[in-house]
Amino acid sequence: MTPPRAGEFDLIARYFAPLARGGRVSAFDLRDDAASLQPRPGHDLVFTADALVADVHFFAQDPPDLIARKALRTNLSDLAAKGARPIAYLLCLALPGVIDERWIAEFARGLAEDQARFELTLAGGDTTSTPGSLVVAVTAIGETPTGRMLRRAGAAIGDDIWVSGTIGDGALGLHAARGELDVDGAALAELIDRYRLPRPRLDLGMALEPLGVVAMDISDGLFQDLGHIIRLAGAGAVIEETLVPLSSGARAALAKAPGLIETIVTGGDDYELLIVAPPSQGQALAAAGDATRTPVTRIGCIVAGNAVELRGSDGQLRQFAKGGWTHF
Amino acid sequence: MTPPRAGEFDLIARYFAPLARGGRVSAFDLRDDAASLQPRPGHDLVFTADALVADVHFFAQDPPDLIARKALRTNLSDLAAKGARPIAYLLCLALPGVIDERWIAEFARGLAEDQARFELTLAGGDTTSTPGSLVVAVTAIGETPTGRMLRRAGAAIGDDIWVSGTIGDGALGLHAARGELDVDGAALAELIDRYRLPRPRLDLGMALEPLGVVAMDISDGLFQDLGHIIRLAGAGAVIEETLVPLSSGARAALAKAPGLIETIVTGGDDYELLIVAPPSQGQALAAAGDATRTPVTRIGCIVAGNAVELRGSDGQLRQFAKGGWTHF
Repeated sequence: MTPPRAGEFDLIARYFAPLARGGRVSAFDLRDDAASLQPRPGHDLVFTADALVADVHFFAQDPPDLIARKALRTNLSDLAAKGARPIAYLLCLALPGVIDERWIAEFARGLAEDQARFELTLAGGDTTSTPGSLVVAVTAIGETPTGRMLRRAGAAIGDDIWVSGTIGDGALGLHAARGELDVDGAALAELIDRYRLPRPRLDLGMALEPLGVVAMDISDGLFQDLGHIIRLAGAGAVIEETLVPLSSGARAALAKAPGLIETIVTGGDDYELLIVAPPSQGQALAAAGDATRTPVTRIGCIVAGNAVELRGSDGQLRQFAKGGWTHF
Repeated sequence: MTPPRAGEFDLIARYFAPLARGGRVSAFDLRDDAASLQPRPGHDLVFTADALVADVHFFAQDPPDLIARKALRTNLSDLAAKGARPIAYLLCLALPGVIDERWIAEFARGLAEDQARFELTLAGGDTTSTPGSLVVAVTAIGETPTGRMLRRAGAAIGDDIWVSGTIGDGALGLHAARGELDVDGAALAELIDRYRLPRPRLDLGMALEPLGVVAMDISDGLFQDLGHIIRLAGAGAVIEETLVPLSSGARAALAKAPGLIETIVTGGDDYELLIVAPPSQGQALAAAGDATRTPVTRIGCIVAGNAVELRGSDGQLRQFAKGGWTHF
């Protein structure tokens, strides 16, 4: 219906074919209908898919290399949470007419950079035009030892709740990008960068795999995501506000506007790992953090109940209305 | 940026969770970050992805169950062309605000129907809102015996060119759906149905796998897709116009407008298999067609040269300017 733009799609194939070389998947320079992978004995494959839409998950005018890397990294964050090692990904792009060669070149450059960093390759995909918004849909493929994928299910009352890194930067970064946050220039840049570019915790995830902990990635907000874990457990959770790890930018913002604590714990776009484990595993968990140079912080515990609550420094318990995105 | 519609996405999860049960993939009712699959020894996994965009690949007002089935089937057609057996798929949906529960229910019903027919299950995905057009991006996962995925590469001068089914119906169906085709009601309905609902040739593909033939699916038009095969072979191809298998609807349309032959051989949306094999395999290929009740027809051969040409009943050779879509 929209006329084909064959020349442009040939161009895309030229930029993308180099991304399909050198990995474990046979992708035939993207010149076949499909790619094939010979699985490693003793391993399961792990699959996840996430799509980003312009002006929903990123700003259409964001640098194309960052859009590409965010699309890849949101998926890698899911693999990290499952203790999986990345292998490859497939990419579907719906491109509005304003996309030009320079945009494609920058987008491919971003993919190439993160492929090298996280050791995976492009296994295929599809490019189409769209009369609507830019959509970047990624399916990521990883592997774990057989039967070892970390799960959201299995938390128990008395377990500790841990997170990697710092919480709230992604959500505050979105506010910062909109000019809605009163912080200085350095904090602003730090927060916006966290919003634009998730840091998938792959090394930590793989170090957690032997521990068999409960894990998921925080993409929809700490409270909402923890909600998934407690519903599967038939339990509740209490998070200690004073224990939630914050970046210097988030601390600065929170000092000026204490109400931002709700944004921090419900806002989403953290792409940190949320880990639940019995206290007996605390030392091993801390060691996994040390070994992978990833901060891990105990922030609360699983309790009897059915809600996620935040205990403030005054001892008061608060709940927050459900917010954020629901992925399936 | 677009406000979340959490209730709606919960609804989607409820409609989609049943689609994730009963297959070989552990998808945990879509309540985890990822799904896992234990590969079968002696088998490779095969991956392909295709996205459909409203008002590019289908009409936004098309029945939702047909949109769902077309999105699934375009991917299954790629698996069929590789001789692969389907296992599972992941689905990313970007939904505009006009989508309601009834639409989702019908969309899920279409998926369920084709999952049962083609024996695969939903392994995960993502639903987001979009301010733009509906996008349905599918990644399909299949398997072949180790090292046996059929390839586009490997055609040789002297090989025969075969197709499954009939050619041109999808492209004529698009014209018919637009009211641009002068045929009677029955032919019109048949052609529109072919455009709306591809018939992936999975049984034939699996029957061809032991033969190791060159194969691909025809999605961008017979001539353009054959062009991929001859470029990889460093050869040319001649198609005999009188041998190209046509449906009764296509024959009726062509009788009234002989110029439609170009639409038939370049228009795309066929989702038939294009097969290239030496004459010595002709009998085995015909037997594979018989065994799977799939018509297969020899339509030409690979020759020295570098172009795809159509030989008319008058013996004249014609080429067509490149048309159709380019998938990567």
